[in-house]
Amino acid sequence: MASQPVRQYSFQVFRDVPPLRKFRRQLLLSDRTVGFVPTMGALHEGHLSLVRQAAAENTDVFVSIFVNPTQFGVSEDLSSYPRTWDSDVEKLEKLNDELAASGTESKPLGRITAILAPTSKAMYPASPPTSEVNGHGSFVTITPLSQKLEGASRPVFFRGVATVCMKLFNIVTADRAYFGQKDVQQTVVIRRMVQDFHVDTEIKIGDTTRESDGLAMSSRNVYLGARRRAVGLVLFNALKAAEEAYKSGKVTRSDILNSANRITQQVLAEQQALKPSERALYEVDYISLADPDTLDELETVDPAKGAVLSGAIKMAPLEEPKSDEERGLGDGQVPVRLIDNLIFKPLV
Amino acid sequence: MASQPVRQYSFQVFRDVPPLRKFRRQLLLSDRTVGFVPTMGALHEGHLSLVRQAAAENTDVFVSIFVNPTQFGVSEDLSSYPRTWDSDVEKLEKLNDELAASGTESKPLGRITAILAPTSKAMYPASPPTSEVNGHGSFVTITPLSQKLEGASRPVFFRGVATVCMKLFNIVTADRAYFGQKDVQQTVVIRRMVQDFHVDTEIKIGDTTRESDGLAMSSRNVYLGARRRAVGLVLFNALKAAEEAYKSGKVTRSDILNSANRITQQVLAEQQALKPSERALYEVDYISLADPDTLDELETVDPAKGAVLSGAIKMAPLEEPKSDEERGLGDGQVPVRLIDNLIFKPLV
Repeated sequence: MASQPVRQYSFQVFRDVPPLRKFRRQLLLSDRTVGFVPTMGALHEGHLSLVRQAAAENTDVFVSIFVNPTQFGVSEDLSSYPRTWDSDVEKLEKLNDELAASGTESKPLGRITAILAPTSKAMYPASPPTSEVNGHGSFVTITPLSQKLEGASRPVFFRGVATVCMKLFNIVTADRAYFGQKDVQQTVVIRRMVQDFHVDTEIKIGDTTRESDGLAMSSRNVYLGARRRAVGLVLFNALKAAEEAYKSGKVTRSDILNSANRITQQVLAEQQALKPSERALYEVDYISLADPDTLDELETVDPAKGAVLSGAIKMAPLEEPKSDEERGLGDGQVPVRLIDNLIFKPLV
Repeated sequence: MASQPVRQYSFQVFRDVPPLRKFRRQLLLSDRTVGFVPTMGALHEGHLSLVRQAAAENTDVFVSIFVNPTQFGVSEDLSSYPRTWDSDVEKLEKLNDELAASGTESKPLGRITAILAPTSKAMYPASPPTSEVNGHGSFVTITPLSQKLEGASRPVFFRGVATVCMKLFNIVTADRAYFGQKDVQQTVVIRRMVQDFHVDTEIKIGDTTRESDGLAMSSRNVYLGARRRAVGLVLFNALKAAEEAYKSGKVTRSDILNSANRITQQVLAEQQALKPSERALYEVDYISLADPDTLDELETVDPAKGAVLSGAIKMAPLEEPKSDEERGLGDGQVPVRLIDNLIFKPLV
């Protein structure tokens, strides 16, 4: 790709900031609105549903594709994170066709008009991006929110997310930006950042998109393979059980979380009883019941406020992969961390 | 002041963000340009010179007046920092008269059209602003730049400055923002922040405004009083001597800094020989010869790149103030830290 916009697609592709800015300013002055969907590529139906929502609410949709190095810890999967430019672009092209076909006069739909696929140098111009906790650079930190839940095991993650989002927000100056509910802590951190730094972009959260059995879509699911994929559904099922408890009137932490923990323990025991060639093991990282704004753990849910129920499990590599099973990218040997959450809406 | 704009002045006064944003957007859509001068009030001729520069380059000048708590350390002078709203507004009103009178058809001048004087709650909406090094909140950090020079003795200072400037930049979305050369490290940190976070505002630096004898103007000078004011000029004189050395062809650290150190040592010795009722003592915090972009200390100045020569001294409280001397605000008992700098321009 050249540093100038390339026009072979139905959208413009920008590798650098100044031409994107110029394009954005033209839209502003002609009273068009921009919905922004930041991604790390490896687009799946969850991303596309955010683009659809953005197209329903804006004349123009900007999608960024940038695998942000500063949100990966030094021992995390930056180098192996799926990079799928050609299929990403193809999906967005198809989606533009769909948007053109499904808009109506009374309910017109916007189009994807810009892809921002910046170089690392464009995003981190002054010094190389660091993943070290004590590394130097220009960062946005949002604490203590960033240290809870996912942040406990991934100390640089939300610093990286907040930093790259501040950059992207400043570049795109969108009217609205779209994030998926699946990364619930990310939505809380970004909302807080936007509030505290007076970013003039409205944050919209799209429902988690799920496979037909309920597994939350994730770019990392391609590493699961069939066996771990089936077992990994335990997280969603555990969260559903806790939600049932809440819906049936339970409000104490123990009542709600015990419903989830029973399931994760039972499924793990079942797996452990199987032969290594048949089973998929996992560790529960956390199951959390937290305040929706502060992510502080709750002893009791206030039914007027609701709560965020979230969890993370680590799927271990397959001990004995079988040659005739679908083992996923990396032959079932890549550890996969799955996260999921359900929002307990206020009941009163 | 009400939360709505008050119109008794020749400019609008905004205490909150949404009405300012609305005003700013109208200016954008009518093709007017905004120059922004962020201040902590206690306006002096240095601030006014920045406003004049902004008025020469923009149709509208926005001035913010906000004593930012997060850039003061826990033991620093936040509570005693001069707050002079009435005289600040009066100075800006007079300056608007001056701008109206001195613009010409070929060289029109902008006017101050908005003052942003936000509440602390508007600037720090989610949680109370902290001055603790390990305090929680939403911050912008720029390291290692922020840890050098001023940052060495003021560990939260540039975190506070960068954080409040990011907020203000997002609120004002100025075409250009104006900072004084006097706070040279601040200019380097802000430039870096703007570069790294793609803030769409051009940073312009105005020359340090000095009293007739050369003392750099500062809001804190009101605490000096006559005796310390006269002795405090040692910093500027020391920097000038080092600049002479550079201009005469010296490029090594020792040649340049020795010229400055000789002066600070000589003046201190002179003072120490005086009676406590006559003298003003000080400590040199640092004299630095540094790279203009990284603020790394230099062993040799590259004449093609130049350097930043900067220094800080701490004026001690008067040991024996005399009743008949002008002792300044606080009766000469407030310790005053003076900073100053000179830019060594490239010689080739």
